Amino acid sequence: MSRKLGIIGIGHVGSTVAHQVVATGLADDLVLIDTNEAKVTADALDFEDAMANLPYHTNVYVNDYAELKDADVIISALGKIDLQENKNDDRFAELPFTSKQVVEVAKKIKESGFHGILVAITNPVDVITSIYQQVTGLPKNHVLGTGTLLDSSRMKRSVAKKLKIDPRSVVGYNLGEHGNSQFTAWSTVRVLGKSIAEIASKNHLDLDAINDEAKHGGFTVFRGKKYTNYGIASAAVRLYSAIVSDAETELPVSNYRAEYGSYLSYPAIVGRDGILEQLQLDLTKEELEKLQVSANFIKDKYAESMAKE
Amino acid sequence: MSRKLGIIGIGHVGSTVAHQVVATGLADDLVLIDTNEAKVTADALDFEDAMANLPYHTNVYVNDYAELKDADVIISALGKIDLQENKNDDRFAELPFTSKQVVEVAKKIKESGFHGILVAITNPVDVITSIYQQVTGLPKNHVLGTGTLLDSSRMKRSVAKKLKIDPRSVVGYNLGEHGNSQFTAWSTVRVLGKSIAEIASKNHLDLDAINDEAKHGGFTVFRGKKYTNYGIASAAVRLYSAIVSDAETELPVSNYRAEYGSYLSYPAIVGRDGILEQLQLDLTKEELEKLQVSANFIKDKYAESMAKE
Amino acid sequence: MSRKLGIIGIGHVGSTVAHQVVATGLADDLVLIDTNEAKVTADALDFEDAMANLPYHTNVYVNDYAELKDADVIISALGKIDLQENKNDDRFAELPFTSKQVVEVAKKIKESGFHGILVAITNPVDVITSIYQQVTGLPKNHVLGTGTLLDSSRMKRSVAKKLKIDPRSVVGYNLGEHGNSQFTAWSTVRVLGKSIAEIASKNHLDLDAINDEAKHGGFTVFRGKKYTNYGIASAAVRLYSAIVSDAETELPVSNYRAEYGSYLSYPAIVGRDGILEQLQLDLTKEELEKLQVSANFIKDKYAESMAKE
Amino acid sequence: MSRKLGIIGIGHVGSTVAHQVVATGLADDLVLIDTNEAKVTADALDFEDAMANLPYHTNVYVNDYAELKDADVIISALGKIDLQENKNDDRFAELPFTSKQVVEVAKKIKESGFHGILVAITNPVDVITSIYQQVTGLPKNHVLGTGTLLDSSRMKRSVAKKLKIDPRSVVGYNLGEHGNSQFTAWSTVRVLGKSIAEIASKNHLDLDAINDEAKHGGFTVFRGKKYTNYGIASAAVRLYSAIVSDAETELPVSNYRAEYGSYLSYPAIVGRDGILEQLQLDLTKEELEKLQVSANFIKDKYAESMAKE
Repeated sequence: MSRKLGIIGIGHVGSTVAHQVVATGLADDLVLIDTNEAKVTADALDFEDAMANLPYHTNVYVNDYAELKDADVIISALGKIDLQENKNDDRFAELPFTSKQVVEVAKKIKESGFHGILVAITNPVDVITSIYQQVTGLPKNHVLGTGTLLDSSRMKRSVAKKLKIDPRSVVGYNLGEHGNSQFTAWSTVRVLGKSIAEIASKNHLDLDAINDEAKHGGFTVFRGKKYTNYGIASAAVRLYSAIVSDAETELPVSNYRAEYGSYLSYPAIVGRDGILEQLQLDLTKEELEKLQVSANFIKDKYAESMAKE
Repeated sequence: MSRKLGIIGIGHVGSTVAHQVVATGLADDLVLIDTNEAKVTADALDFEDAMANLPYHTNVYVNDYAELKDADVIISALGKIDLQENKNDDRFAELPFTSKQVVEVAKKIKESGFHGILVAITNPVDVITSIYQQVTGLPKNHVLGTGTLLDSSRMKRSVAKKLKIDPRSVVGYNLGEHGNSQFTAWSTVRVLGKSIAEIASKNHLDLDAINDEAKHGGFTVFRGKKYTNYGIASAAVRLYSAIVSDAETELPVSNYRAEYGSYLSYPAIVGRDGILEQLQLDLTKEELEKLQVSANFIKDKYAESMAKE
Repeated sequence: MSRKLGIIGIGHVGSTVAHQVVATGLADDLVLIDTNEAKVTADALDFEDAMANLPYHTNVYVNDYAELKDADVIISALGKIDLQENKNDDRFAELPFTSKQVVEVAKKIKESGFHGILVAITNPVDVITSIYQQVTGLPKNHVLGTGTLLDSSRMKRSVAKKLKIDPRSVVGYNLGEHGNSQFTAWSTVRVLGKSIAEIASKNHLDLDAINDEAKHGGFTVFRGKKYTNYGIASAAVRLYSAIVSDAETELPVSNYRAEYGSYLSYPAIVGRDGILEQLQLDLTKEELEKLQVSANFIKDKYAESMAKE
Repeated sequence: MSRKLGIIGIGHVGSTVAHQVVATGLADDLVLIDTNEAKVTADALDFEDAMANLPYHTNVYVNDYAELKDADVIISALGKIDLQENKNDDRFAELPFTSKQVVEVAKKIKESGFHGILVAITNPVDVITSIYQQVTGLPKNHVLGTGTLLDSSRMKRSVAKKLKIDPRSVVGYNLGEHGNSQFTAWSTVRVLGKSIAEIASKNHLDLDAINDEAKHGGFTVFRGKKYTNYGIASAAVRLYSAIVSDAETELPVSNYRAEYGSYLSYPAIVGRDGILEQLQLDLTKEELEKLQVSANFIKDKYAESMAKE
């Protein structure tokens, strides 16, 4: 009965997710939660000031965990806003701060009686997703992270620009950790009806350069404005939309893979029951090795994080 | 042939306008211009990273005034971003800075050969709109400001919340300067099929309190997050949409009223040719006086601003 | 949890409602019901053929009343399709056929356990809405009809064209029966910030002519294509959207007015709980008389219809 | 400056295209043309009756070829509506009628000074597209047909249902004539990160059965309601949107392939300049043979059609 979305963490990313949802009418009820009461109240009021000039109505609730009980989806977008000088381009710089916050938030989510799908944006997203699942006790397939959905979009943008095509016309995935150990699985990338390898050799594309661009694209944006929000928000909104409409869409997101014993980004079918099916790609030996390295890295960081609790 | 929108000033407001347009597919070509090259480049890249997860495609151009030549609409959203401590709640605090910038921008717009509709958000918006019109030499009905479209939305939100109705179901206007001398023309406000006066007396509504809330709503948002963006961006996008689709919509915007010899907010019919018709309200004597005070204030400030050039 | 809409009667109107909902992503689950199994199956398949080229996903269920149990809204659009030569422009020509069908449908809705909001389009809509409420036993405020929402739109279109303004900038209502006894309550119509009477006298508008156009507009469309669908479908979709998002929007719809002892069209506040509040207009003596005539007509027809059961 | 779309032929398909465009705000100006003046006038009025309940405004022009001069796109949707009993499932049954009409229409388009992109839906689409290009004299890459974009969507729907995934997550094409000689090029179909061959053998999918379903899906819909409209309309709207926004999207449409000396459906990159680039697929020998058969069939029919002129 009606669409209900909760967003926890109303910083640059969370408020952009909220704005996109309000502007496109994708939710009926929107629960905004943030420890900065003045900021989240200001955003809620600002959204309500927008309503008279928007086509759709959205009910906005502020800082009320009880409202999450019957939410379809919760998006965790909390982060350390004043971490604005991240000189090492390292999403793990946020971990000590966010992991502590996330445990508290996860407990409150659990207390609310929430039984929908939890989508983490908060970085380092694979570890944070693991923590959310562990603390909330939600089924593993009901907790996922945006993961490399954004990195894959960046790879697609990068390939698409080179070939003068629509990024939506590029198929393929970035895999592993949403962080420095991720990689584009070029064996999965297809464009113009062919493998990227064939197209690249014909068009003299440097895949390594594109890979670097995908990997560091976020930090390019980050350095320009000290945060990134539009790409990641659109990825999260797409995930929310696929879940609430049970679209059964194939998306590279952070999901728990039993064979790696870890959350990591790998394409899966996403719908109202969260992760409905996991793909089994035919990766190259080299790609499998990179994925194992990435998985190990996430597991180590998760273990470290848990040890500190 | 296709919809083309230029946005000048990609701060909090300009980038939010751009995001709403990109997320809803309202423009085919989007020209983003800002003196902070790193910031505007970062936003453009961020929007392109969002494309693969959005339903519509938008072509983004960065810092190219030549691209404005055939734009349907230009939105001026430039402002002094680091003016983050505005202790007097005074939009004129920005004038010395923005008026200088606006003259430069207006000259470049003129040079580009732009002949569409120019919409100013930049504060103090009535004076800035006057400057834009004067410097670009565009017809007066082709230059307008968001003016009290936002204040009217805030008034509607405030009335609507009290009566538990949709702000879209409140009719009426805030008039005059988009600043401290503006006021809600209560004689124009109608709700639930009656005048607000009748409803207010029956429901014990305090119109003065609602007026204050509308007037200071922006600063409440401002204090909470040091800027306001969603309400004003949605107002600007609605204006853009009404213009490009020639919707002939009645909206309270800053437009040149010959009888006051000044730009000020007063409802008008807005379409592809800008201001198509100006309403003639039956205001009360008191409201007319307030409007005259507001008009005088704008004219004085405009004269001061021009004298400094 | 997710938006669910049922549509009963997949003729010209029902299928157009469905198409608009599918094309704009307004529902997650869509239940289509029609006695013509081949037609409804064809439409469902046709919608699914459209999905790959649409931005949003919608799950389509065919002829399964059990799926209505947890629907947010049911729209009744059934009608006698082969009644294509209605020489008397009389919506009551359909009554003997539709009233019988509606009783059967209402019983099945009741059996399904549906407890949402029922919106009737089926003509003669005021009588049909009464029958739906009576047979389903749903609360009176949970059953409503599109009523003169469409006639009001036609009046707005007619006024707007004359004045070269957006129909959305015209305020006012057609009242009473969605049929020959309806009328435009000109005392409620306001445009360009004034009463229509003032504007009409200044612009030499003939309100009687506009009234006739609003009243017979539907039949003009009807004669041109033997049915009307886009106007009525958009009215129904707007109602659905206001209900599911709890927008608290003021709309002239057919709702039960105790003082008339009947369903009839009169503006009300519409939200998730159906009719949230009924307006109390200051109608002229003449308008009140017309409304009484219209109410009596509906009551008589309803009584006749019930007597035949 | 603004988006302008012309639709010629306002039958089931043309009016559905118009409705989708009006309901989603995708065009600013919409030119509707049909020889049945009463029908097209009824539809235009019906759309205007819908406006007050829709978020976006669209200007509707009726039967004015002069308005096509500056249109971005023209969609030809004319057909023989009373051809409602097509017992042989043969799109060529329409040819004698439509080819004559199309020549007349094409001349009027040429006279209007139209210089945008022409998209044909009218069947038999490959021959009709050829005629449009020949008579209008527009560049070959500015004239295209919806072709197997719809058939590909049907194939995707069919594959997707079997595998419980989103049709948008199926990659691949139907090629050749949009008619009985078309075929699914299974070598191009990929799903769940693998070739359909691999997935099919693992999931025991019968590709021949899916192929038949894609091929005859339209006729299943056709028999259920005597026409098909939603699938084809959504395909046409997607094409329009890709063109007007210069999205550079890869789509299987009917485009002129020099190596076959004919229009036929084969994936191409579509943008504001029409067909921007043609893909070069690595088809199997068998697929190449089928494509040649299909091309020959279209060429023969086109030659026959021209001979009759």
